Amino acid sequence: MKEIKIGILGFGTVGAGVVEGIQKNGSLMAERTGITPVVAKIADLDITTDRGITVDDGVLTTDAMAVIADPEIDLIVELVGGTSIARTFTLEALKQGKPVITANKALLADYGAEIYKTARDNNTGIYYEAAVGGGIPILRSQRAGLIGNQIESIYGILNGTCNYILTRMEREGLPFDEILADAQALGYAETPPDLDIDGIDTAHKAVVLASMAYGAPVPMSACPTSGIRGLSASEIENADELGYQIKLLAIIKDNNGEVELSVEPALVPKEHMIASVADSFNAVFVKGDIVDDTMYYGRGAGRLPTGSAVIGDIMEAASDTLNRVGPPVSVTMMLQKTELKYCSADNIEKRCYIRLCLEDKPGAMAKVMNIFGEHNISIASVVQKERHESGRAPVVMLTQKARESEFVGAMNAIQALDVSCAEPIRMRLEDFG
Amino acid sequence: MKEIKIGILGFGTVGAGVVEGIQKNGSLMAERTGITPVVAKIADLDITTDRGITVDDGVLTTDAMAVIADPEIDLIVELVGGTSIARTFTLEALKQGKPVITANKALLADYGAEIYKTARDNNTGIYYEAAVGGGIPILRSQRAGLIGNQIESIYGILNGTCNYILTRMEREGLPFDEILADAQALGYAETPPDLDIDGIDTAHKAVVLASMAYGAPVPMSACPTSGIRGLSASEIENADELGYQIKLLAIIKDNNGEVELSVEPALVPKEHMIASVADSFNAVFVKGDIVDDTMYYGRGAGRLPTGSAVIGDIMEAASDTLNRVGPPVSVTMMLQKTELKYCSADNIEKRCYIRLCLEDKPGAMAKVMNIFGEHNISIASVVQKERHESGRAPVVMLTQKARESEFVGAMNAIQALDVSCAEPIRMRLEDFG
Repeated sequence: MKEIKIGILGFGTVGAGVVEGIQKNGSLMAERTGITPVVAKIADLDITTDRGITVDDGVLTTDAMAVIADPEIDLIVELVGGTSIARTFTLEALKQGKPVITANKALLADYGAEIYKTARDNNTGIYYEAAVGGGIPILRSQRAGLIGNQIESIYGILNGTCNYILTRMEREGLPFDEILADAQALGYAETPPDLDIDGIDTAHKAVVLASMAYGAPVPMSACPTSGIRGLSASEIENADELGYQIKLLAIIKDNNGEVELSVEPALVPKEHMIASVADSFNAVFVKGDIVDDTMYYGRGAGRLPTGSAVIGDIMEAASDTLNRVGPPVSVTMMLQKTELKYCSADNIEKRCYIRLCLEDKPGAMAKVMNIFGEHNISIASVVQKERHESGRAPVVMLTQKARESEFVGAMNAIQALDVSCAEPIRMRLEDFG
Repeated sequence: MKEIKIGILGFGTVGAGVVEGIQKNGSLMAERTGITPVVAKIADLDITTDRGITVDDGVLTTDAMAVIADPEIDLIVELVGGTSIARTFTLEALKQGKPVITANKALLADYGAEIYKTARDNNTGIYYEAAVGGGIPILRSQRAGLIGNQIESIYGILNGTCNYILTRMEREGLPFDEILADAQALGYAETPPDLDIDGIDTAHKAVVLASMAYGAPVPMSACPTSGIRGLSASEIENADELGYQIKLLAIIKDNNGEVELSVEPALVPKEHMIASVADSFNAVFVKGDIVDDTMYYGRGAGRLPTGSAVIGDIMEAASDTLNRVGPPVSVTMMLQKTELKYCSADNIEKRCYIRLCLEDKPGAMAKVMNIFGEHNISIASVVQKERHESGRAPVVMLTQKARESEFVGAMNAIQALDVSCAEPIRMRLEDFG
């Protein structure tokens, strides 16, 4: 039986979850792997707050740098959050040749290139399963189980807060603001909620997935991001009537050798597996050229589920360390190439959901249809509801695949029509075809 | 860049898929991992049939034992199938200290204990991701991502043939025999279909999952197995009306420290993720004490999906070999304990679906209800359809949780009633509660 000494930086929610998990199941993990995980040090500026966890005397400290430097400590778990001091700690540990386990998606999204290279140059590892999809072993599946696959596409529901809001909007038919406020009151959404509902958190995770899929650190600037803020209940209702649900998706594709990447709300067919992902659950749908469709589902957040992912990484890092393995695949996969080519947003072909508001006048629809025709956009279905008392008719359409630049042109032209009475709403429709 | 030399035994469907996958993506795998996989030898008794794959001169051979003994060969991929010669090859390779990758679930189910111990004693590894769930990285998720978890339960849809038949019966309302015949004609089911439709194949996979979950080789005799042979379309229709689907499930649970294990058709709620698993897809739903619910979905068979799993194992075995790692977790996890305790079938508490056929006489239902009461079985819902012209009334019931021995007693008593006109049908109902 071997032993590995762990230094944890950050004793917040996830830190406490990791310690709880190891206290509960450490001896089981040792039985399974032959390695006993020992939480030797926990550094936090606040070491007086009760975390609901009892640790031995001398384990808690306020000096993170001393933990990193401690020759007794074999590996470092970075759970301080943010991208400032977390970056300093991570780089320092890697420079000392110590593997780092992190759950910090923002850190990887912003400083991944520097971190992966530092790990490689110091012949050690960075492990970050918990950064994407919480407890779901999605990165491990990608870098190990699917290692033989070219990744054709990845669709991710990666933010539990957004999925919770969308699920409740759909079930209850209530407006976005009301559900958001309730989610905040219940602790399902943070205040302010911007990182979640504007899609930033999803984008942090999307660039990590894309980096691993295509072999080089992907900058946040390569990921056009829109969230679900202010999504109208009408869209949810219209989508439902047409057989679709709205999900906030990370979309990652190999588009003829160029990386297509975005975070956006999208309509997905109700019968597709990904539409079954409800409440605060996450899921990642991965299509490989050999394995075909796969999906991974679970809790995307929470102290214990995230702790589960951190613990999985701790045990892998421990085995790599004890066996003196060099930089692991979680490092080498990120540094296959120096640069990736990205698909210009204008060139992306997609289907769309479009909602227009037209004055109820003869010829209004003909004008709209002419514009679509001029922009090479075929309409798959149209639902025109009976006009409101206002004399304005909402028109809902689903298109066939067309180029983004054509959609932009068509939307501008339609909005300029005299019969157009509100800004058109447009959303991607993803049928996984 | 390092190189690993692979010897493949068996050049059938999966063997050809593995070679195709390595030919297609070998250089990508090398970029990702720093290790180049080289198919150095392929042994098969038939080396003349065209597999649609071109290999270099000298790679094909009919002498598997020579491949195993070849000092140039770093690892062995066993894809010959069956449990006779496959066992000999596997044990021989392990005794020579060579890691073995296999997709052979029957071999592991029947000879797992011997194989894991031989690997351990010879300080090498056996890798078998492809044996369960085809291309789905479920074992890797269990032994790495979820390593910190006590496994509370696993529910698996592990046989694509059965799931395909059940999906079509449900969609088309046709009888079992007709769909089976069609599935055989289309190549979705083998002739004879026994291993699949009688649940044996699912049970082979279930014992591997259970072994890994609870830390000792589980014998097939510990897995009561029933399949879907002759399942009546009435059951599918009744389940549907009540909001359920019928799936052939592997059920694995920690039942107060005892292993509960079975393979059986079961009703599952339509809104549960596992009910969305259609056609020939597989899925495994795993609940860990820390991670909570997770699910893994993908193709459970097919040359390339299975090849994807084999290739993932090849690269892991290659890394372990080059880094001189001892027996991997895929071995140590199977040998934590010498013996497991199993939950007696009689003691298992479950909900059931029951269909009775009663003579349409006053007091018939009262007699039935008395029997349920005497056996401590509460009825959650009853649907009695209008009597057929025959004067016989089919009665469908869903029970609350009760003990298996009570169900057996009640069924026997009901069948002995003078108003009972056919053998009662009973099936488990699994609501994941």
